[in-house]
Amino acid sequence: MTDFTATKAMFDLPQGITYLDGNSLGPLPRTAAARVARSVTDEWGQMLIGGWNRAGWMDLPRSLGDRIAALIGAEAGHVVLGDTLSIKVYQALASALELNPDRRVILSDTGNFPSDLYMAEGLCRTLGDGYRLKTLAPEDVAGAIDDSVAVLMLTEVDYRTGRRHDMRALTRAAHEAGALVIWDLAHSAGAFPVDLAGCGVDFAVGCTYKYLNSGPGGPAFIYVSPRHADAARPALSGWLGHEAPFAFDLEYRPSAGIDRMRVGTPPILQLAALEAALDVWRDVDLNDLRSASQALMDQYIAGVEDACPDLILATPRDHGMRGSQVSFRHPQAYAIMQAMIARGVVGDFRAPDVIRCGFTPLFLGAGDVARAVAVICDIMQNRLWENPAYQTRAKVT
Amino acid sequence: MTDFTATKAMFDLPQGITYLDGNSLGPLPRTAAARVARSVTDEWGQMLIGGWNRAGWMDLPRSLGDRIAALIGAEAGHVVLGDTLSIKVYQALASALELNPDRRVILSDTGNFPSDLYMAEGLCRTLGDGYRLKTLAPEDVAGAIDDSVAVLMLTEVDYRTGRRHDMRALTRAAHEAGALVIWDLAHSAGAFPVDLAGCGVDFAVGCTYKYLNSGPGGPAFIYVSPRHADAARPALSGWLGHEAPFAFDLEYRPSAGIDRMRVGTPPILQLAALEAALDVWRDVDLNDLRSASQALMDQYIAGVEDACPDLILATPRDHGMRGSQVSFRHPQAYAIMQAMIARGVVGDFRAPDVIRCGFTPLFLGAGDVARAVAVICDIMQNRLWENPAYQTRAKVT
Repeated sequence: MTDFTATKAMFDLPQGITYLDGNSLGPLPRTAAARVARSVTDEWGQMLIGGWNRAGWMDLPRSLGDRIAALIGAEAGHVVLGDTLSIKVYQALASALELNPDRRVILSDTGNFPSDLYMAEGLCRTLGDGYRLKTLAPEDVAGAIDDSVAVLMLTEVDYRTGRRHDMRALTRAAHEAGALVIWDLAHSAGAFPVDLAGCGVDFAVGCTYKYLNSGPGGPAFIYVSPRHADAARPALSGWLGHEAPFAFDLEYRPSAGIDRMRVGTPPILQLAALEAALDVWRDVDLNDLRSASQALMDQYIAGVEDACPDLILATPRDHGMRGSQVSFRHPQAYAIMQAMIARGVVGDFRAPDVIRCGFTPLFLGAGDVARAVAVICDIMQNRLWENPAYQTRAKVT
Repeated sequence: MTDFTATKAMFDLPQGITYLDGNSLGPLPRTAAARVARSVTDEWGQMLIGGWNRAGWMDLPRSLGDRIAALIGAEAGHVVLGDTLSIKVYQALASALELNPDRRVILSDTGNFPSDLYMAEGLCRTLGDGYRLKTLAPEDVAGAIDDSVAVLMLTEVDYRTGRRHDMRALTRAAHEAGALVIWDLAHSAGAFPVDLAGCGVDFAVGCTYKYLNSGPGGPAFIYVSPRHADAARPALSGWLGHEAPFAFDLEYRPSAGIDRMRVGTPPILQLAALEAALDVWRDVDLNDLRSASQALMDQYIAGVEDACPDLILATPRDHGMRGSQVSFRHPQAYAIMQAMIARGVVGDFRAPDVIRCGFTPLFLGAGDVARAVAVICDIMQNRLWENPAYQTRAKVT
């Protein structure tokens, strides 16, 4: 059994905070501060340019990619870090479309994170030639995978509701219809077991600053199935994806395999934080993590529903159909979340009416959930959200 | 007069190292370690998700962009940080091509950094429709700007030879021929005064980890002229370039102005290092910097040519025609650089035969140059590069 007391001790959480927002920005792993400081002072400061080789900077996007591969059921050597999730979406989409050249439709859903849809829109416009994005309600996607669809692009877990798609069934359906699939694992990686290879997924992308705790603006990752690895076109053909970056050839020749998805110079300080953050996973069994997370979510739902009938559950009750977050809807969701934060229970408001809380047993236990439930119920029963201070919207992240 | 003793004291350079490679990776500014540590421990650790507003993370790409704007002669409010230089090249190119829709040629030169050319190749392939990259020798560019050219895309300073293009004249020539211009300032920003607005430049891009000392993998920047700011298309249309990112609309509407060139979540730890690095510039007059850098280069060239006739100068002697680096050619350039590094004089080898050294008065003085000259001359006169240890090529960055 995974020892979640041990993992909790690996995080440096502020006193008095119940942090239910690790699905937006994971908290600071204790060793990350020292690891980043080492990267700044001992590596950059002392090795200077030599750090690229001596400190292994140049290899970090691949070596850390392998560690993430192990968490998402990917084959070793087929995940690489870099850029942001939006950029990785663009790369995956451009590659997938070129691998399926006779079709013109990208199929996605309204539960996808908007940036994925925006990047698809931008790519379609650049491609011209009839390419288009078709966006349906999540429940209508399965029935719409026909022979016009080049690529099915979905985020596995809906960032608002927490609804989880059936990756295996949808990947199979897409393949049967001759489409390729791209899965965005933003709310999956580090949240529960993922089986990319077993599901036969073509491309996957994800971020590291949510459940993988790499810190603000940590790099994204991309997975390309081994069967496409040497055929996928790197539309963003940067020098570090070149077969021989330091030959400085005038013409681009893609590197073999996943390295072609590298673009520019990797962000070493962010990668150092990620490296420390990945150490947390050493003795974690993802099945244990999943069971514990389901228990926390069940406890939270039961507690809130019991005492706060005005909050309407937006997340599926079915364990198989949800990620690792629970969302309730309420017209005053913004003010309610402000009141929660003022009392040290930190979750997210998501427009227009969602109170979103993430549950990860790495640093949360039943006591934390009980406290969160008590605070929310106090706010709802005593209408504490009516306080004008909670009604004024500042910038929202 | 700028006090370069004061700026030198702002850097933490290793004992015994003469660092002539700030043009590859600038050294560590003393305050950067504390600034990054604060970002990790006090901001990420204590503010958690709240850091996006409370610590001002979300504004850093723009506020630091304004500080860079002041160093490159750009209008305030028209520079933003993010991604890597290659990604920024792609954005600038895609925008510029769409602003000049009746033409199909991107004109560049063989002295451009290869990644810029690779990104252009990739974009042309994605666009299809006859778009193509035409790459000439640097001296042939001016004569080739005709009415087929949609965009002239050049790096101002050649990364190998240090040859500097005439930004003002080439920009004017391009505009007279109906072309737009993109300048890559990788080896310009922080190296000498740049006058983007005065030259009427359309787009500029650059990196921060060279002369701006932001550390390994620091973010890139992009400038869009005010006259294009609300018309340039953000081909990489990510959520942070949206008019209202946190409305989570399903359709992309570009933000007004430079914000549309933002893509994904900004790399906060790298931006923190950059913030500290930009403090070095507070009392620096770029004209003083330029004069001092020219003097260091003259001293270096005279010293090396005087004692090492086998080293052939690849950099223009004319002050107006070079950046802030000096390159010599020699068939044994790789081994010579290894011998230099072994003696604490750190520059760069650039394939196939270039010994490249960068000169910045921020942390280098005449004594450093004298030491470098003495070491190089010792190596050349005593053929120390023949040592087999220097002949074996490790990975080269």
